[in-house]
Amino acid sequence: MTLNVFKKPLYVILFFMDARFSYLSHLKCSACDHIYDADQLQTISPCCARPLLACYDLATLAKEVSRDEISHREATMWRYHEFLPVREPAHIISLGEGMTPLLHAPCLAPQGLEQQARLFVKDEGQNPTGSFKARGMSAAVSRAVELGVQGLVTPTAGNAGAALAAYAARAGLPSHVVAPKDAPHTCIQQARLYGGEVHLIPGLITDAGRAAAETARQRDWFNVATLREPYRAEGKKTMGLELAEQLGWRLPSAIIYPAGGGTGVVGMWKAFAELRAAGWIANDQLPKMIIVQAEGCAPLVRAFHQGKDEADAWPADEAHTQAAGLRVPSAIGDRLILQAVYESGGTALTVSDDSMQQMVCYAAKRAGMLIALEAAATLAAYHTLLATNFLQVEDEVVAYFTGSGLPDLQYVVC
Amino acid sequence: MTLNVFKKPLYVILFFMDARFSYLSHLKCSACDHIYDADQLQTISPCCARPLLACYDLATLAKEVSRDEISHREATMWRYHEFLPVREPAHIISLGEGMTPLLHAPCLAPQGLEQQARLFVKDEGQNPTGSFKARGMSAAVSRAVELGVQGLVTPTAGNAGAALAAYAARAGLPSHVVAPKDAPHTCIQQARLYGGEVHLIPGLITDAGRAAAETARQRDWFNVATLREPYRAEGKKTMGLELAEQLGWRLPSAIIYPAGGGTGVVGMWKAFAELRAAGWIANDQLPKMIIVQAEGCAPLVRAFHQGKDEADAWPADEAHTQAAGLRVPSAIGDRLILQAVYESGGTALTVSDDSMQQMVCYAAKRAGMLIALEAAATLAAYHTLLATNFLQVEDEVVAYFTGSGLPDLQYVVC
Repeated sequence: MTLNVFKKPLYVILFFMDARFSYLSHLKCSACDHIYDADQLQTISPCCARPLLACYDLATLAKEVSRDEISHREATMWRYHEFLPVREPAHIISLGEGMTPLLHAPCLAPQGLEQQARLFVKDEGQNPTGSFKARGMSAAVSRAVELGVQGLVTPTAGNAGAALAAYAARAGLPSHVVAPKDAPHTCIQQARLYGGEVHLIPGLITDAGRAAAETARQRDWFNVATLREPYRAEGKKTMGLELAEQLGWRLPSAIIYPAGGGTGVVGMWKAFAELRAAGWIANDQLPKMIIVQAEGCAPLVRAFHQGKDEADAWPADEAHTQAAGLRVPSAIGDRLILQAVYESGGTALTVSDDSMQQMVCYAAKRAGMLIALEAAATLAAYHTLLATNFLQVEDEVVAYFTGSGLPDLQYVVC
Repeated sequence: MTLNVFKKPLYVILFFMDARFSYLSHLKCSACDHIYDADQLQTISPCCARPLLACYDLATLAKEVSRDEISHREATMWRYHEFLPVREPAHIISLGEGMTPLLHAPCLAPQGLEQQARLFVKDEGQNPTGSFKARGMSAAVSRAVELGVQGLVTPTAGNAGAALAAYAARAGLPSHVVAPKDAPHTCIQQARLYGGEVHLIPGLITDAGRAAAETARQRDWFNVATLREPYRAEGKKTMGLELAEQLGWRLPSAIIYPAGGGTGVVGMWKAFAELRAAGWIANDQLPKMIIVQAEGCAPLVRAFHQGKDEADAWPADEAHTQAAGLRVPSAIGDRLILQAVYESGGTALTVSDDSMQQMVCYAAKRAGMLIALEAAATLAAYHTLLATNFLQVEDEVVAYFTGSGLPDLQYVVC
C-alpha cells in the first residue's frame, strides 16, 4: 500500500521528521493495569487472563501531530497511523479498509418521523471482505507480520474467518480458520477462496475458540481470536476515529452497535478516550453507547439489566439466532463492553430475528442499502428505542451497519 | 450526504464564495460538436443520434479551484463536484461511492515477476452495490432528480440494474429494470430487493435496450441506458480523476479496463482531457488505454484489429461469455472508446472465460481479493500483454477491478 503522506512536498516531510509513525508505548492488562512490552508478541494478560490493551504516548502525539494533518491523507483507516500499533509503514497489510461512508439516512427512521430524524448510518459493508472485521484483521495481521509470525489462526462465527484469510493471503502467510459447522457457508466459502484452511467443528464459537487455540499451539502459529491479542481492537478503534473526523471532530448523541464479541464497542470507546487525551475532541461530547443483541443470545443485555459488571455465559444449547455474528454466548471483553455502556449512560437491548429481517428489507427499499442481519439489528434497536423514549427523534444517532448483505443476498426475502 | 467542505472554518467558505459547485456549461454531440442546453433533460443528440458529452468551463475552474483543495474533502467521488454535473449539493444522491482504494499488487503479476512488477489495482468492488456502476448511477440519478424526473428506467446485463434500483430507492423514486432473462440472478435479486421493478426478456442487452426505451416512453420516466443520457459517463469519469489524485496528480503508463458498454473508458479518457485543460496534470503523461473483452463477444477488439473507427455488432446468437457485463454485442459509444484506444497508443485484446476464472482464484489466493469475472479479465490481459511484450514488467500499470465477487461467491470454484 502507498500512504499519500509520502507524496507531499518536501516541506511536509521535513515537518514530520521528528514525528513517529506510531506512538504505541506499551500494553496493559485491562483488569489490573499491569504493564507489558508492546514489542513482543502477546496474547491475554498473564496476570489476570484478561484482554491486553494497547497504550500510546498521547501527550507527545498531541504535541507533534495535529488533527488537521489527517484530512490530507489517503482514505483508509491507516490515515490514523499514529494511533495504531504498526511501527513501520512497510509492514502494513492493507486492502483499503476504513473511511467507510457516514450517510445521513433519516429515511430509515420509523414512517412519519423521517422529517425530524437525525439518523446517520456508517456503511461498514463497503470494507474489503464485506464487513467491519477487515479493520481488526488489517491491524492484527500487520502487527503480527511486524513481530514475525509464520502463520495465523482464528475461531469465527462467520465474517472474521473470511477477513483473516484475506489479510493472511495479502501478507503471503498461511491461515487456519475454525468455525462452528453451522456457520454461514458463504463466510466459509469466502475464507476458502482466499486460501484459508477451514476446520468445521460441532458446537458454538466458544468451542471453535478452544480448537483454534489448540491449533495455534501445535503449529506455533498466532491466534488472533477476539480480544485474545491486543490489536484487532485497535483496528476497530478506527470506526470511532473516523466518526469523529467525519462529523468535524465531534461525536453524536448516541451510537448503536450490534454486539457479538463486542470488540467494536471496546475499540470505539477506547478511541474516544484517546481523542480526548490528545485534545482532538472536547471532554463533554461522549455519545451514549448502545449495544444490541439477538433475543436468542443476549448475555451482555442480560448482565446489563441485572446491573452486573460481568456477563455469565448464555447456555450454549439455547443460543439461537440467524444472525451468526451475534451467536456469541460469552465474550472475553464482557467487562470492557459493559463498562462502556454504563459509563456512557447507554443501554442494552435485544431484538428478534424477525425484526432484523424486516429491517434488511426496510434498508434496501428505503435507502438502497443491502445490509447483513447483524447490521439490521441496529435499525430495529433504533426504532424500539424511539418507541420507548430512550431516544428522541431529534437525537443525533449513528447506527453501525457492520456488514454487507451482498454475500447472502440470495437468501433474503422481502 | 454531508460534504465536509462545508465544515471548514469561515475563511475557507469566504474563499470559495465566488466558486461554483459545478462548472457544467453545456452539452455537445460527440459526433459533430453541435451544442445543447445542459439544464434540460437530454438523451442522445437529436442531430446525429450519438452520445452527448457534458462540457465544463474549465478555464474558469482552473482559476477558481486548486487541486490541493480537493485533498481535504470527503472520501467520495463528489469531492470532484466542480467536474460533475450537479448544480446544488442538496440534489446529490449518494451512497458513499468512489474513492476506492488503489492497491499496489505486484503479487498478482505472473509468478517469478512479482519483484519487478509495478502493478496496481483499483478495487471498484468496494463501491455501494458492489461495482463501479454505482458511480455512473449516482451521477445520472442525482442530475435526473435535479432536472425533475418522476421515475427511472435502465436496460442491464447485470450490475447496472442493481445500481439503478439502489440509487432510485435512495432518491425515493420508482425504478424499472429490463434484463435478458439469462442475466445473473444475483443482480436481478439485488435490484428487486432495492424495490426495483424487474422485467426479464428473451435476447441480449441490446434487446433489453429497446424494451427499456419503450417503457420510458410509455410512463414518461427517464432512461439512463449507457451513453443514452450524458451523465453516467460523468460519474465513471471520477475513476480517472481519483487515479490521478491517488498517484499524486500524475498517471500510470497503462490502464487495463474490461469493456462492455465501455463508458468507463470514455469517462476516464474524458477525465484526463479535463485535468489537462485545467492544468492539474501535465500534457505528456497520458496512459495507454487498453480494453479487454471476452473471446465470445468482442466487437470492439475486432474493430480495433481491423483498424476501424466504429464497431460492427457481434452476432447476437454468437455472443457467449460467463462474464455477463461483457456480453454486450454493440456499444453506442464504440467510436469514443476506439478513439481513446487509438489516441493513447493502447490496444484491445480478448481473454477466455477460463482465464478469467483462473484469475478470480489467483486474485483471491495471492491478494485476498474476491473479484468478479469482468474484473479478472484485466488480470488475464495483463499476463497476456507481458507475454507478448506489449507491456514490460517495469511499466506502471493499473488494472480496474470493476466489480466484487461477493454476490456470486457461491459459484466460484478454485
